[in-house]
Amino acid sequence: MFSNNFATIGSGDGKRRMIYADYTSSTPVLPEVMQEMLPYFDELYANPSSLNDFALKARRAVEEARERVANLLGASAEEIIFTSGGAEANNLAIKGFIHANRARGKHVVVSAVEHYSVMHPLQSLAREGVQVTRVGVDEHGRVRVEELERAIREDTILISVQHANHEVGSLQPIREVAEIAEERGIALHCDGVSSAGVVPAKVEELGVDMYTLSAHRFYGPKGVGALYLARGTRLLPLIEGGIQERGYRAGTENVPGIVGMGKAAELAEREMRSRLEKLRRLRQRFLAEFQEEVPEAKINGHPGEVNPMYAHISVAGVEGETVVAELSARGVHITSGSPCMARAAKASHVLAAMGLSAELIRGAVLFSLGVPMSEADVVRLAQEAGEVIRRLRGE
Amino acid sequence: MFSNNFATIGSGDGKRRMIYADYTSSTPVLPEVMQEMLPYFDELYANPSSLNDFALKARRAVEEARERVANLLGASAEEIIFTSGGAEANNLAIKGFIHANRARGKHVVVSAVEHYSVMHPLQSLAREGVQVTRVGVDEHGRVRVEELERAIREDTILISVQHANHEVGSLQPIREVAEIAEERGIALHCDGVSSAGVVPAKVEELGVDMYTLSAHRFYGPKGVGALYLARGTRLLPLIEGGIQERGYRAGTENVPGIVGMGKAAELAEREMRSRLEKLRRLRQRFLAEFQEEVPEAKINGHPGEVNPMYAHISVAGVEGETVVAELSARGVHITSGSPCMARAAKASHVLAAMGLSAELIRGAVLFSLGVPMSEADVVRLAQEAGEVIRRLRGE
Repeated sequence: MFSNNFATIGSGDGKRRMIYADYTSSTPVLPEVMQEMLPYFDELYANPSSLNDFALKARRAVEEARERVANLLGASAEEIIFTSGGAEANNLAIKGFIHANRARGKHVVVSAVEHYSVMHPLQSLAREGVQVTRVGVDEHGRVRVEELERAIREDTILISVQHANHEVGSLQPIREVAEIAEERGIALHCDGVSSAGVVPAKVEELGVDMYTLSAHRFYGPKGVGALYLARGTRLLPLIEGGIQERGYRAGTENVPGIVGMGKAAELAEREMRSRLEKLRRLRQRFLAEFQEEVPEAKINGHPGEVNPMYAHISVAGVEGETVVAELSARGVHITSGSPCMARAAKASHVLAAMGLSAELIRGAVLFSLGVPMSEADVVRLAQEAGEVIRRLRGE
Repeated sequence: MFSNNFATIGSGDGKRRMIYADYTSSTPVLPEVMQEMLPYFDELYANPSSLNDFALKARRAVEEARERVANLLGASAEEIIFTSGGAEANNLAIKGFIHANRARGKHVVVSAVEHYSVMHPLQSLAREGVQVTRVGVDEHGRVRVEELERAIREDTILISVQHANHEVGSLQPIREVAEIAEERGIALHCDGVSSAGVVPAKVEELGVDMYTLSAHRFYGPKGVGALYLARGTRLLPLIEGGIQERGYRAGTENVPGIVGMGKAAELAEREMRSRLEKLRRLRQRFLAEFQEEVPEAKINGHPGEVNPMYAHISVAGVEGETVVAELSARGVHITSGSPCMARAAKASHVLAAMGLSAELIRGAVLFSLGVPMSEADVVRLAQEAGEVIRRLRGE
């Protein structure tokens, strides 16, 4: 079983306290993680790059964290580059790889459901002549591997496919994509922000050359992430001007954040099985309850190959954002999709690519479950959501 | 006077405890700053971009911090872009400004003593046709304003001059540079990493269009910084893929870090005068003691126009790095120059530009003073350094 850590950050008692069901937007930092971070704010506060012995302590803490993150991925420590988060790591992977390998080709293949921190850098690179092919997905949001294979050209240098989709949680067939990439000698980047620390993600098994992680998605702090960069993969830095991270990322290391990410990675690795079991149980219970409440609801995402934190649902005849607001007024906090775009009020390109109707896209809500939740929490979550949705539908 | 905050993080008792005199590499986080940050790790942990009311609390905290940082600079909140630190902010300013304004020209003017997080991005941009003129400095490390004016061309779009030099602490004549920039209609970026939160830096008085800050340099946390971007100045993002920071910087906000930076900025603004007075007194005392210990030492940097945290000294006949190591073995922690390059063991381009001999560059050490220090600390610092230096010189 996992540590008692989660008890203190429980997100509800099933009755009157707040229910937080927005764990895919962010997670609380675990007490054990906080405890390891704290000394690096005001006791061991040296700049790790400074030359004196006091700085050595900070440097060692960063290197220990690097080992722990590497271990989560089954990688070597020297293959981990710490960044300020998932968005920076994705930007570094995309821009950095293309800038370093531009002479070899100008074509990139991605799935149609990537996060904007993969898509937008590619759009910017278009002004440097980079060309992108987006490959469609099936109704569960999983990339069509045969279509992906056909999209490859002579000048394709990079494929980027996420591990789990950031809106519906579907796990992508990364190993199949990796086999194609390897056969054709093309590098494979995998955005693991919505999977790392939750589902198994060993880079050798997946067969990826780059893999993005974000600490605050697995009970570590915000403001820190990492990019796995396989030995031999060439990359130019995005943030330049220092020798930190072996020249791949300048700037004084966020020592407490990195230490926190290391501890969160260690706990995630150790407790992954029990956490996953609990999440699957919570998800099953939630969906069963919710379907009793709103039988006509459509559950989005792959039925089996899914990050079990995700319970993404569409209901015809309601506005997802109104459901979110009404639930929030009752102390039940969910979201209607990707937080990076939620406030831009743009229709989801993910759900559109999955072929959902405009009405079902409008009526989408994401209940995202976390290890701190209890069965009582998810039952109340389903009931409150049911009440709100029925009322909004005028039932 | 300033708060009692510094008492608890004092860096020595003048006798046997460690002496930390590397405050320009990094500073400890003040207790009041920690206290404000803490709830955002494990209580108010929502993603600020999520749509629910719980997220609103995180969003409001970020906006309050933005007001506080703006206030430190005499700017408006909407002119502040939070980043992961000074290096990212400098990269964003340089690359983002040039990419947004490339059609207007391709030439940039900088001082010869800028930090590498300004210089290296410019070197990378050379492959996109950007041309750079480096302007020399006087023996104190201050940019030659007339030479700078002569360096301006018809196609100059940007001038970048630091506020305080990152190795010797000399304050640059920013207002004079700003007058020239304004007259010629050229944007001015100012790297304020080694000045912001320590010396007054009101952007309107300085006349800058962009100004870089780093929180861990003024008793805030590592991993967070900001770029002031004057209204009307065009910039393209470096990290793309989300609506955060008004589209200038994607990625989930580092809420605790940003809150910490806000509080550190508020304290820095409120206590600036008393902190500066103390630092000036400490510096004067230290230099007086040190000159008695090592009369032949050369004090580098401008005698008056200097960030008083800096006591940068050259001694012929010793290796700076050996002095650092010997002092560190005695529990006295200083550095030999810029931490971003210290471990790369490269000769300082700053000291070379100031015209120092190879011997004096080799024999350079930086004692950097902080508000938590006592007079007894700086006296012991001078004495221990004197002993070590005399022994190394075989005296």
